[in-house]
Amino acid sequence: MSEHHTYKKLEMVGTSKFSIEDAISNAIDECHKTIKNMEWFEVVETRGHIVDGKVGHFQVVIKIGFKIENS
Amino acid sequence: MSEHHTYKKLEMVGTSKFSIEDAISNAIDECHKTIKNMEWFEVVETRGHIVDGKVGHFQVVIKIGFKIENS
Amino acid sequence: MSEHHTYKKLEMVGTSKFSIEDAISNAIDECHKTIKNMEWFEVVETRGHIVDGKVGHFQVVIKIGFKIENS
Amino acid sequence: MSEHHTYKKLEMVGTSKFSIEDAISNAIDECHKTIKNMEWFEVVETRGHIVDGKVGHFQVVIKIGFKIENS
Amino acid sequence: MSEHHTYKKLEMVGTSKFSIEDAISNAIDECHKTIKNMEWFEVVETRGHIVDGKVGHFQVVIKIGFKIENS
Amino acid sequence: MSEHHTYKKLEMVGTSKFSIEDAISNAIDECHKTIKNMEWFEVVETRGHIVDGKVGHFQVVIKIGFKIENS
Amino acid sequence: MSEHHTYKKLEMVGTSKFSIEDAISNAIDECHKTIKNMEWFEVVETRGHIVDGKVGHFQVVIKIGFKIENS
Amino acid sequence: MSEHHTYKKLEMVGTSKFSIEDAISNAIDECHKTIKNMEWFEVVETRGHIVDGKVGHFQVVIKIGFKIENS
Amino acid sequence: MSEHHTYKKLEMVGTSKFSIEDAISNAIDECHKTIKNMEWFEVVETRGHIVDGKVGHFQVVIKIGFKIENS
Amino acid sequence: MSEHHTYKKLEMVGTSKFSIEDAISNAIDECHKTIKNMEWFEVVETRGHIVDGKVGHFQVVIKIGFKIENS
Amino acid sequence: MSEHHTYKKLEMVGTSKFSIEDAISNAIDECHKTIKNMEWFEVVETRGHIVDGKVGHFQVVIKIGFKIENS
Amino acid sequence: MSEHHTYKKLEMVGTSKFSIEDAISNAIDECHKTIKNMEWFEVVETRGHIVDGKVGHFQVVIKIGFKIENS
Repeated sequence: MSEHHTYKKLEMVGTSKFSIEDAISNAIDECHKTIKNMEWFEVVETRGHIVDGKVGHFQVVIKIGFKIENS
Repeated sequence: MSEHHTYKKLEMVGTSKFSIEDAISNAIDECHKTIKNMEWFEVVETRGHIVDGKVGHFQVVIKIGFKIENS
Repeated sequence: MSEHHTYKKLEMVGTSKFSIEDAISNAIDECHKTIKNMEWFEVVETRGHIVDGKVGHFQVVIKIGFKIENS
Repeated sequence: MSEHHTYKKLEMVGTSKFSIEDAISNAIDECHKTIKNMEWFEVVETRGHIVDGKVGHFQVVIKIGFKIENS
Repeated sequence: MSEHHTYKKLEMVGTSKFSIEDAISNAIDECHKTIKNMEWFEVVETRGHIVDGKVGHFQVVIKIGFKIENS
Repeated sequence: MSEHHTYKKLEMVGTSKFSIEDAISNAIDECHKTIKNMEWFEVVETRGHIVDGKVGHFQVVIKIGFKIENS
Repeated sequence: MSEHHTYKKLEMVGTSKFSIEDAISNAIDECHKTIKNMEWFEVVETRGHIVDGKVGHFQVVIKIGFKIENS
Repeated sequence: MSEHHTYKKLEMVGTSKFSIEDAISNAIDECHKTIKNMEWFEVVETRGHIVDGKVGHFQVVIKIGFKIENS
Repeated sequence: MSEHHTYKKLEMVGTSKFSIEDAISNAIDECHKTIKNMEWFEVVETRGHIVDGKVGHFQVVIKIGFKIENS
Repeated sequence: MSEHHTYKKLEMVGTSKFSIEDAISNAIDECHKTIKNMEWFEVVETRGHIVDGKVGHFQVVIKIGFKIENS
Repeated sequence: MSEHHTYKKLEMVGTSKFSIEDAISNAIDECHKTIKNMEWFEVVETRGHIVDGKVGHFQVVIKIGFKIENS
Repeated sequence: MSEHHTYKKLEMVGTSKFSIEDAISNAIDECHKTIKNMEWFEVVETRGHIVDGKVGHFQVVIKIGFKIENS
């Protein structure tokens, strides 16, 4: 059995009309369609669009780390 | 017709007793009184006061970008 | 009476299943057990665990500033 | 006569279809309509839109420094 | 219809003998072969090789953001 | 009565032949002519001119935060 | 023949019980299974787990650059 | 005899009505009441309060390094 | 049972004549004398003394995270 | 034959009325008068003077790396 | 006559028992012995030794820019 | 006797096939040929070449500080 693992990190931008947490979840949900073994995320940047003088969408840039299978 | 636009960025601090998102909205609301054409914001810093061992206010520093009219 | 005060800053990691704000509050609650005079916090880093393709915990690294008594 | 001057810095985003230098010039041209005494600029960030697989606009964030009159 | 989108960011290095803008375009051209929906780029780093006392190639590190289809 | 306030931050460069502290004060003095409610400053950068092998002026870039009235 | 090349950068986390260098090698070994033309790496972050008061694993975040074939 | 030493770093905020240097000294004085073996400091951030359009206090965030006894 | 934990981070400087890894271990060993539940470390800075034209000691600044008991 | 080389990095500021690329070339040309074996450059900062509301000079701070002979 | 100049930047550490400004001046004085045409300095880092619970020396890291003659 | 010293910092890149520590030593060895009074180093960046899917050379960028004689 290997005594070490290797991980890969992806940089994603999740968006949400509602909250920063929801934007993070949306990005993770999207990745979950194709990636297994996601283990952690890191928020890199928080920003958003303003529409008619109000927040239109929160845009949260995150890095997602996942274990490479059989690594 | 001009083929390019110019934008200005302001640095504001919104505050809220309730949430980071609300603090962002409060800063945008305040700017909306005098500035049109706001298009995006970027969170620069998140901090807050502590009162009696609890969060008193969230203080969120954001930059707000808006298009200069007729630019 | 001294005309100046000295403050100390601690670096804590609060966690929460629910939100970034709740993770911040949890870290402050924990410090409040032993530290008086907490005055402000600064968010240093926001990250979290992913469990079964969903956010397991938000982990928010904050610095907490408090006044040194009799300083 | 005052022996020192005070300067203010503005953060602007210039855009151009052609080049980074042109985007910088466009931002400075726009400011020149209302601000005298501009003395220097600093590039803060370079980015752009992609349209149909090609650069649509370069967007260059700059800070512009100008002397406050009679300072 | 989904009310939010998710984006992915790739980090590429474009090179050019001629200019920084050309290096950016070359990286975007290469990505365009396999990626649709590219929306923006951000310059991360600008560097280059020196050959015989002259710039051999500009090397521009950019991040490219694109929308995940059906997200 | 509003339960939150909004602040704006300006970026200024104060200069002085004498000291870093004096350069900071000069920038604040200049702002005080037109801005009320200044509450804090943050030093962003410290630099200066050299004239005849000696410091000619200290140039201190600061951000100044002030409360928006009636916010 | 093209006069320029395009490179892609991946962000990986290698781990090792033994050393930072070994963790770097493990990440590169893993990538070598599927990626040809790797040319350089950059260490982004060094951290690790502590188990029973001793370093359990070094975790080294690196970026790996490789040439896109036929670019 | 041990051939190596271990040091701990604390983050403090010293304040002064007079100068940046005095704020640094005040923080070190305060630490000196309880900590022996302080060896160096590093300035992390310089800021201050503005009162009535003048600097009220300089606030200087420093890290202080000291040797752990018997390490 | 609490559904969340709180962690504290300390900043330490480990030194070693031999290697970066050994300096990290020395800092962790020293902390292990008084702190339980250490879970991770992050390398903040790597530096060292030069003595007689050779590395005298590696000095590695790390942050150590540990769980607060009963949090 | 030595199996490794050592490089030195210099920090230069090139200027040009015309473009960022030209400013880079000017700095490299100047160094080429006295330094052999220059191998790469890294752009550290891009700024410039503004004269009469237009860019007077681009000022590009670069680091230049060159191999130490016989290293 | 050349229409552009090239500058070189050196990194120096000035020290002083008295003040940050004095440490800056000491570094500039030392450079003035061998370098003509110094034009500006930038403070990179401020730190110092602590001796007997008091500031022993301020150590100020600065970059000094000077024009290369005949450039 | 002067009560203060001035130091200069050089930026070097050491390389090694074997380890990060060896790359640091190689850069210091090379500097030792011409520079006396080296006192400390700071690691700025760690990177390397990849050859045939393995680390070819570690490349470690360091700053080296040395005292200016008679300063």
